[in-house]
Amino acid sequence: MTNPIDRLMLKAIQREPTPRRPLWIMRQAGRYLPEYRALRAKHSFKDLATSAELATEVTLMPFERFAFDAAIVFADIMSPLPALGIEFDFAPGPIVAQPIRSAADVEKLPEPDRDKLAPEVIAALKMSRMALSEDTALLGFCGAPWTLAAYLVEGKGVKDFPTLRAFAASEPDALDALLAKLSALMAEYLILQHKAGADAVQIFDSWAGVLALPDWERLIRPHLESLLSTVGAAGVPRILFLQNAPHLMDAYASLPCEVLACDWRIDIKGLQKQYGDTRAVQGNIDPAVLLGGPEATRAAAERLLEAVEPIGHIVNLGHGILPQTPLESVEALVETVHNENA
Amino acid sequence: MTNPIDRLMLKAIQREPTPRRPLWIMRQAGRYLPEYRALRAKHSFKDLATSAELATEVTLMPFERFAFDAAIVFADIMSPLPALGIEFDFAPGPIVAQPIRSAADVEKLPEPDRDKLAPEVIAALKMSRMALSEDTALLGFCGAPWTLAAYLVEGKGVKDFPTLRAFAASEPDALDALLAKLSALMAEYLILQHKAGADAVQIFDSWAGVLALPDWERLIRPHLESLLSTVGAAGVPRILFLQNAPHLMDAYASLPCEVLACDWRIDIKGLQKQYGDTRAVQGNIDPAVLLGGPEATRAAAERLLEAVEPIGHIVNLGHGILPQTPLESVEALVETVHNENA
Repeated sequence: MTNPIDRLMLKAIQREPTPRRPLWIMRQAGRYLPEYRALRAKHSFKDLATSAELATEVTLMPFERFAFDAAIVFADIMSPLPALGIEFDFAPGPIVAQPIRSAADVEKLPEPDRDKLAPEVIAALKMSRMALSEDTALLGFCGAPWTLAAYLVEGKGVKDFPTLRAFAASEPDALDALLAKLSALMAEYLILQHKAGADAVQIFDSWAGVLALPDWERLIRPHLESLLSTVGAAGVPRILFLQNAPHLMDAYASLPCEVLACDWRIDIKGLQKQYGDTRAVQGNIDPAVLLGGPEATRAAAERLLEAVEPIGHIVNLGHGILPQTPLESVEALVETVHNENA
Repeated sequence: MTNPIDRLMLKAIQREPTPRRPLWIMRQAGRYLPEYRALRAKHSFKDLATSAELATEVTLMPFERFAFDAAIVFADIMSPLPALGIEFDFAPGPIVAQPIRSAADVEKLPEPDRDKLAPEVIAALKMSRMALSEDTALLGFCGAPWTLAAYLVEGKGVKDFPTLRAFAASEPDALDALLAKLSALMAEYLILQHKAGADAVQIFDSWAGVLALPDWERLIRPHLESLLSTVGAAGVPRILFLQNAPHLMDAYASLPCEVLACDWRIDIKGLQKQYGDTRAVQGNIDPAVLLGGPEATRAAAERLLEAVEPIGHIVNLGHGILPQTPLESVEALVETVHNENA
């Protein structure tokens, strides 16, 4: 059995030298795969995400085609929220049955019910670990407190989340209480995932960018810091992914984590130059480039490998792979990364 | 008759001292007004935007309630595109009948037909100028070349415009040709608007933020610079509005214009500190704050007036006013700005 520390992905997270850079892709178990689309024709997204067996099948699906260096458990950022009594559906993004719009709504949230803290995700992690090859890392994940609150307050994904911003401006104390609850719950959830076999976890902060920096410092930082510290104290390696918030990148780099993951808007070379002594970086090919086919993909991958130092670099896209991506582009990406030092 | 240069708005654009700061609101002639909603119940958005009489009525509508210091002509960023033979509808954002997806599509665009360069907008400007009080400025506007190309290539507004990004990566020369055509046409359009009575023009760049800075420099800068230079050489004061692209703010500040307009994500105080010697600034209260009512609005307006030096500051929201905004919040904003030195 490989010592987990020998997994390429884990070495890169710790900024140790590796024979080549590790590669995985956000949404690698998703709609660009014909076999995923075939499964979705038979099951709703919610069915896939709430069945440990189906979630495991989907988690492992891309490995039939591509030698990625990490699997990420198939789940939704909403998956742990039934532990707070929150009901939701997908259409296709999350739709919350009863949005949280007042201090009273926050107070009404029950104490977390640990039996409902996504047992299907925990089971899928255990089953996936058993099925994965020893040299493949397994990742858990959660939504950052603010990004979860975005859906809970707005009720669904709406451009720039105006209801959330209004709530933040008018009810900062209620928001603070909500974020505190989410932060504590997510810490618990990530530690559970680690115990179930996740080598590392990624925290997705997708909507922080709707805030200006001073508001972020005041409203978000304390809760994200608390989540990351708790998880770090439990020995879980942390990948922090920030989306569409270039004005907050430096603030995120000041948070406790092992890996800074960034979208394609960010100058990842500059990020590594500035923070590479203490942080690995993950990213960040524009997923839209893959729509242009294998040649365009290869060129973009080569530019990335050229620009970013290999030690402490995990190759990924700058956002989830797009459903209409040709499989040939993914092949070209895998090939380019695998052949760098071959 | 007031000399146009005495209009508060024009003095602020030129960074001259004013008795108080000027104020206008993006989408001030819009759905938060009950009388606008009543008119929309009888006419489609396209009807309003393509009739000079109706567009004039809507342009003037907010002045029955609020003493704004500038009117902006009611039109859509797509309004001048029939001059390039482009057909579109609104649902509610622009839907382009035949998206541009190849070099051949760009080559097929006809020479601009000046008779179709939004004559209804030009007429609406002339009529609005006659109806407005002498101390109210009149603004024209257009979409920036990239933002227009976003709709033309993607076909409609889609989160992060992946087809556009793929086109930019795979067909940079075709994109360049498209942006050159749009830049030349928009320069002509803005100069026409100025001749028809627009004291100044605002260029809206809403979607530049989907690009990383090096791609922006390569793909967008030359065409935006050319547009701004041509318009500036014709003596038209230019307000450059950048939305959701904080990583590009410094690049925009290097472009030729009189006013840097920014969204609520941007530290406008810092922007003024850095560029205030050569540029006025416009903005940037978070429009979502107004949803919280007049008290929250007054507090945000007071914080803004406190933070930003009055000379060379045009008060505005950081994005279009939201349809669900209470009228009382707008009243509170107007009152706060008017009372600053009273």
